[in-house]
Amino acid sequence: MQTKILLDEEQIPKKWYNVQADLPSPLDPPLHPQTHKPVGPADLSAIFPMELIRQEVTTDRYVDIPEEVREVFRLYRPSPLYRAHRLEKALKTPAKIYYKWEGVSPAGSHKTNTSIPQAYYNMKAGIERIATETGAGQWGSAMSFATMLYDLECTVYMVRSSYTQKPYRKSMMQVWGAECIPSPSTKTKSGQAVLAKDPDTPGALGIAISEAVEDAASHSNTNYALGSVLNHVCLHQTVIGLECREQLASVDAYPDVVIGCVGGGSNFAGISFPFAGDKLVGKHKDVDILGVEPASCPSLTKGLYTYDFGDEAGYTPLMKMFTLGHDFVPPSMHAGGLRYHGDSPIVSRLVHDGVMRAVAYHQSEVFEAAQTFARAEGIIVAPETSHAVKGAIDEALACKKTGEEKTILFNCTGHGNFDMSAYDAFYSGNLVDYEYPDRLIKEALGRIPKIA
Amino acid sequence: MQTKILLDEEQIPKKWYNVQADLPSPLDPPLHPQTHKPVGPADLSAIFPMELIRQEVTTDRYVDIPEEVREVFRLYRPSPLYRAHRLEKALKTPAKIYYKWEGVSPAGSHKTNTSIPQAYYNMKAGIERIATETGAGQWGSAMSFATMLYDLECTVYMVRSSYTQKPYRKSMMQVWGAECIPSPSTKTKSGQAVLAKDPDTPGALGIAISEAVEDAASHSNTNYALGSVLNHVCLHQTVIGLECREQLASVDAYPDVVIGCVGGGSNFAGISFPFAGDKLVGKHKDVDILGVEPASCPSLTKGLYTYDFGDEAGYTPLMKMFTLGHDFVPPSMHAGGLRYHGDSPIVSRLVHDGVMRAVAYHQSEVFEAAQTFARAEGIIVAPETSHAVKGAIDEALACKKTGEEKTILFNCTGHGNFDMSAYDAFYSGNLVDYEYPDRLIKEALGRIPKIA
Repeated sequence: MQTKILLDEEQIPKKWYNVQADLPSPLDPPLHPQTHKPVGPADLSAIFPMELIRQEVTTDRYVDIPEEVREVFRLYRPSPLYRAHRLEKALKTPAKIYYKWEGVSPAGSHKTNTSIPQAYYNMKAGIERIATETGAGQWGSAMSFATMLYDLECTVYMVRSSYTQKPYRKSMMQVWGAECIPSPSTKTKSGQAVLAKDPDTPGALGIAISEAVEDAASHSNTNYALGSVLNHVCLHQTVIGLECREQLASVDAYPDVVIGCVGGGSNFAGISFPFAGDKLVGKHKDVDILGVEPASCPSLTKGLYTYDFGDEAGYTPLMKMFTLGHDFVPPSMHAGGLRYHGDSPIVSRLVHDGVMRAVAYHQSEVFEAAQTFARAEGIIVAPETSHAVKGAIDEALACKKTGEEKTILFNCTGHGNFDMSAYDAFYSGNLVDYEYPDRLIKEALGRIPKIA
Repeated sequence: MQTKILLDEEQIPKKWYNVQADLPSPLDPPLHPQTHKPVGPADLSAIFPMELIRQEVTTDRYVDIPEEVREVFRLYRPSPLYRAHRLEKALKTPAKIYYKWEGVSPAGSHKTNTSIPQAYYNMKAGIERIATETGAGQWGSAMSFATMLYDLECTVYMVRSSYTQKPYRKSMMQVWGAECIPSPSTKTKSGQAVLAKDPDTPGALGIAISEAVEDAASHSNTNYALGSVLNHVCLHQTVIGLECREQLASVDAYPDVVIGCVGGGSNFAGISFPFAGDKLVGKHKDVDILGVEPASCPSLTKGLYTYDFGDEAGYTPLMKMFTLGHDFVPPSMHAGGLRYHGDSPIVSRLVHDGVMRAVAYHQSEVFEAAQTFARAEGIIVAPETSHAVKGAIDEALACKKTGEEKTILFNCTGHGNFDMSAYDAFYSGNLVDYEYPDRLIKEALGRIPKIA
């Protein structure tokens, strides 16, 4: 009973897949935060290198992965695809469950798939420092690792609630030479403004993004880097899905269901876009693509599909996406990486068009799923990842009822070794299943700027 | 530049290699703690299943690995062998450095290689609960994982200093359904005795072993399991070296130097015994086999080669080994898994006979080496593992001086994700380089029982 499907290093993808090429109509363009006119490369060049701006807008179907980036990928890619024999047995399901294990990366999650090329292109552009934000710390540590590889400095604004819950993510960043600051901080105007209103705020990704963007925009040697949401980030993550498709093909399989957790949407994009592309061009019309989000931050399931800012302060361009409102502060739950008010514009578009769909779960039920997974497969996943696990388990249990032998693929994005305090809370009965009152969501949605 | 050398699951070893078959003369037998007569199977059967007792004493060259155990190994074995291209470049060494990455196991270290078969044989023997000890928590979590697989209960006595430093190892054990108790505890007579003498003791592996043995001996449904030292544990770990030999052969290589860190000696045994066997039978006479231990617990470099107890209280048989004295309490440094007064009898014998050798390092220099490794290869290793890293780096730097292009192989036993407080101490300058005064070592050695 083969458990791991491995590929050779030569099979690390040579090109990223760009689903923009296969959309029936172009994406709505990002708009300038003040003028509300479409932004051009010049507007973005203050904080991004030109190659990433090009990747953000290109409609080429494939984008070459630099050989120097593939060389670093050899440290952990291709990542293994597991057949979850033990989980299937535990669930007594006729479904076949596969999971892509991205926790083998040095920083412990899929985030290095984009931090490495982002650091590379910034180094090539002569940039000396990266300012970025991080939720649970996965992105901050991935960026710290990547900037170290290319001799860049790195400043990470870490959402305060996670900074407190997960102090050892900061230690990890330190090993790789980065500086990690709790956000909101007093280092930026946007941080100061939030602290003035609420000194005890747990912070939020949208706030941390404002701080990092402000830092980058006000230092000429410094660029900004985002760990999710943007098109080029989703593009970089497609190595996950491209490898999966190859690995499944080697055992004559193709997924009926593809599942990922959704915060900003990049890991979900990464595993699903190659399959969404197959669906869009009519090759596999029936593949079901499912994003799983937290019920406490339900952007895809309760948000609006409209233009909104990517950050709290309104520094970023306006993007057409599912959003709960840019100043929505999600409750301080354990899947810090999913606490984002918006979603990737491409993921949003595909959900809006019915190519993908979304569900939301509460944190106690996803930790229950994570325990089932850990006890079957051995891997203790991150709280974010446990949302995808829950989605896969529910699909497999549905198959048990119907008798369908579906092939279920999910993205096992990262390990929970830095999240054990969340498991402690689960075992001590201290997990709260926050549900944002519909009234407050409605109010936040009402504060989204109106675009003519 | 290929980085990872992978094997198929079919290449998971089918047999363990037993170096006892190739020793020029038999090992000195373990002696009964009271009578000082050689112990027989009956003496051990109160706490071990018969198959493990058989494996402890057999001189068969190979022992079959049960198919049910290989089936579980598929979750993480064969583990990858890495060529450390980036570390070689960082050190500017002509040496070729390879490391076996055991951190891919569910519990994050090599320890599952023996916890899985040990739990399996106990299950087969009808045992319902395992009592065991753990230092840094690697063994305790590995045993928790394995007992869960076979529906056994598990009680882990965790050395108090590590229990305090690394609370999340306990959380990990909880996810897998085990109970973890700080040692010394009030649950056992041996624990109570130590606490009566010194209520603030940091604990030690030797004390925790006494507690677990006492627990097992006083409950008929309960057996004891040891994570290192014993012959059958070293036997189980040889999957590491057997895979390495195969992986190196696939690139036409054979090591000039084989390196492991040494606490009880099992990971070092695991990576080195197949090569020590080649050396003993004259196939590769020059292979240099190097154990690296902490200067604060220098059993191989400053201990006596003599009979001594395996535990503090004197419950275990007397074993002929290098020892600092069974009541030696090493200072509370960060490599908790190396805080053991003795060593594997086989490793001790091979060091005594000159087949292997040992060096000792202080903790600040091994953390320095771990940082060099993390910044080159990405992996943040456990404090125990960092001793092997330091040994490998020093060998590679020696090659830089001599110009030798040696092939260096070391055992990268586990990740440091649960040890970040140790890295914090390193960065804040709070690491103390304990050196045990020779006078105290001499006194502890003086308390070793005299065997006629």
